Amino acid sequence: MKQHNILNYYVGIDIGGTNTKIGIVDDKCNIIIEKSIKTLPELGVQKTFSRIWKTTQEMADTINISEDNIIGIGLGIPGLIINQSIIKRAANFPWGDNVNAKHLMEEITKKPVKVEKDVNNIALGEYLFGEGRGFKNILVISIGTGVSAGIIINHQILSGTTGCGGEFGHIVINPNGLKCGCGLTGCLETYVSTAGLLREAKKLITEKNSGLISKQFQNNLQQLEVHHIFEFYKKDDAIAITVIENFCRHLAYGIGILLNIINPDAIIFAGGISKSADVIIEKVNKYLHNYALQASMENLQFRSSKLLDSAGIKGAAALIMNTDKTENL
Amino acid sequence: MKQHNILNYYVGIDIGGTNTKIGIVDDKCNIIIEKSIKTLPELGVQKTFSRIWKTTQEMADTINISEDNIIGIGLGIPGLIINQSIIKRAANFPWGDNVNAKHLMEEITKKPVKVEKDVNNIALGEYLFGEGRGFKNILVISIGTGVSAGIIINHQILSGTTGCGGEFGHIVINPNGLKCGCGLTGCLETYVSTAGLLREAKKLITEKNSGLISKQFQNNLQQLEVHHIFEFYKKDDAIAITVIENFCRHLAYGIGILLNIINPDAIIFAGGISKSADVIIEKVNKYLHNYALQASMENLQFRSSKLLDSAGIKGAAALIMNTDKTENL
Repeated sequence: MKQHNILNYYVGIDIGGTNTKIGIVDDKCNIIIEKSIKTLPELGVQKTFSRIWKTTQEMADTINISEDNIIGIGLGIPGLIINQSIIKRAANFPWGDNVNAKHLMEEITKKPVKVEKDVNNIALGEYLFGEGRGFKNILVISIGTGVSAGIIINHQILSGTTGCGGEFGHIVINPNGLKCGCGLTGCLETYVSTAGLLREAKKLITEKNSGLISKQFQNNLQQLEVHHIFEFYKKDDAIAITVIENFCRHLAYGIGILLNIINPDAIIFAGGISKSADVIIEKVNKYLHNYALQASMENLQFRSSKLLDSAGIKGAAALIMNTDKTENL
Repeated sequence: MKQHNILNYYVGIDIGGTNTKIGIVDDKCNIIIEKSIKTLPELGVQKTFSRIWKTTQEMADTINISEDNIIGIGLGIPGLIINQSIIKRAANFPWGDNVNAKHLMEEITKKPVKVEKDVNNIALGEYLFGEGRGFKNILVISIGTGVSAGIIINHQILSGTTGCGGEFGHIVINPNGLKCGCGLTGCLETYVSTAGLLREAKKLITEKNSGLISKQFQNNLQQLEVHHIFEFYKKDDAIAITVIENFCRHLAYGIGILLNIINPDAIIFAGGISKSADVIIEKVNKYLHNYALQASMENLQFRSSKLLDSAGIKGAAALIMNTDKTENL
């Protein structure tokens, strides 16, 4: 078994609703070993963190890294994080409000810990190691069950005072729309999300019952998944086209607002939907000029994540590695 | 005549559409002398800058400060500024695009010069010397002929890659609305601006012709000014109330979006409208919970500028004084 000679290792952890990805990285942030485990947040935050640490110890052991050589741990969590420490509110976990995740993880591991919102770590990962390299201001847009942006401005994460930085999914676009999980009504996220995409597609399939997508799913709507919609879009199915066009128009509206406020060098699509980034970028560009200042679009780069899952691990590890670039003073 | 013994002085200049304010400050950013001159931008940028510098030299002379002791100059300009140097586009000046204002002013003055958007300098002034002291993330909202925000995040100005940082006045809120000066249609600024306020008030006075404000202005609408609307609001005039309510509802919409993206510690109202900040803050708070994430409003401070005009002078001077805090790397 190979003995690693580098003495400084860091752990990057990306806690998701279903799975948690754990990586041990070297001092250049190369991932030496990574593993995915079930998150099982219902067991409580203490138990979840303990299981994650136990797995990390086993991983280190596998590759003959001494626990003493693990310098620090970065955590990514889907929720509002204050001061890279406190989970003000976790998106889907029954952990209560204002959990001091940094303190808890430091108690369990006896290592220094920093915590950020998952998408902010992904943004940091892309900024340092991925499609965001060389830029000063970037947006990483992650679309999944919700939509949010990880924002790097002047080379730093924009976390916001109470962890709400980048929560552009909660721009209200329809005051008479659907109630959003956040408590507001008609948020962008009720349209721009996997749930929104599926809801609109199912609605049109039921109402219109025409074309290829209806033929395949009219009698088993519950089997419809997001990738189907993109597949039928590419087959010129009218319903799929309408759904994708509306989705991208709404997304362009949100991105237009971000451009007028943040004015980044580049926008990088991450998360599951980045597999369809080519379609999304084309359509967003079609609508964007209606919503964004012309000057904010000049030289703007659109990119699709190549790091994929490793962005969250690398960004989390970088949080604790590179205090100069990531600490919000 | 008093001889000043401090050897380091800086110049802060706030160039406005009509008037330009010039201040000479000491190394604590105390304004030693200030003067306002007509901007006369129609004479061209070269002549405007030369006149400003000549006035500055005369001011220095008046108080026996040697030109050699002026260390640097900060400029604030209403327009999109790139890299604290280039006026990508000036709001109202016939100077053409992409004027290298830094280079030009350095040639004229033989001093180091930095340039920022006017509202960004005001934000820096408030952050360092005014209502923003002690905070890490602030928004300074200036409402006048337009509306925009000077944003400080992680103690730094958010200028944006092409100078569009903070341009939330160009969020499209009504795709069927009025054409905006920026080229987009239905921007927030077409409602939230002095022009928007006056337009809506004149419209209601003409349509309804009732109440105190109609009585006074129905036959001389062109005499109506913004302060009148606030005065009649305080006299419970129904038209003034409707106009102010709508204005503040639109403003709350824009602020809600800023909160969901920037999530600052404090919002400071600056510019002419800050005289009516008490009314605006009360009404914005009334509507804000419809548009902002609850977490983003917790502990949020609303303030009204006390520095007023001097914020722009002090912020401009601080740009060049305090490279650590203001330079965007």
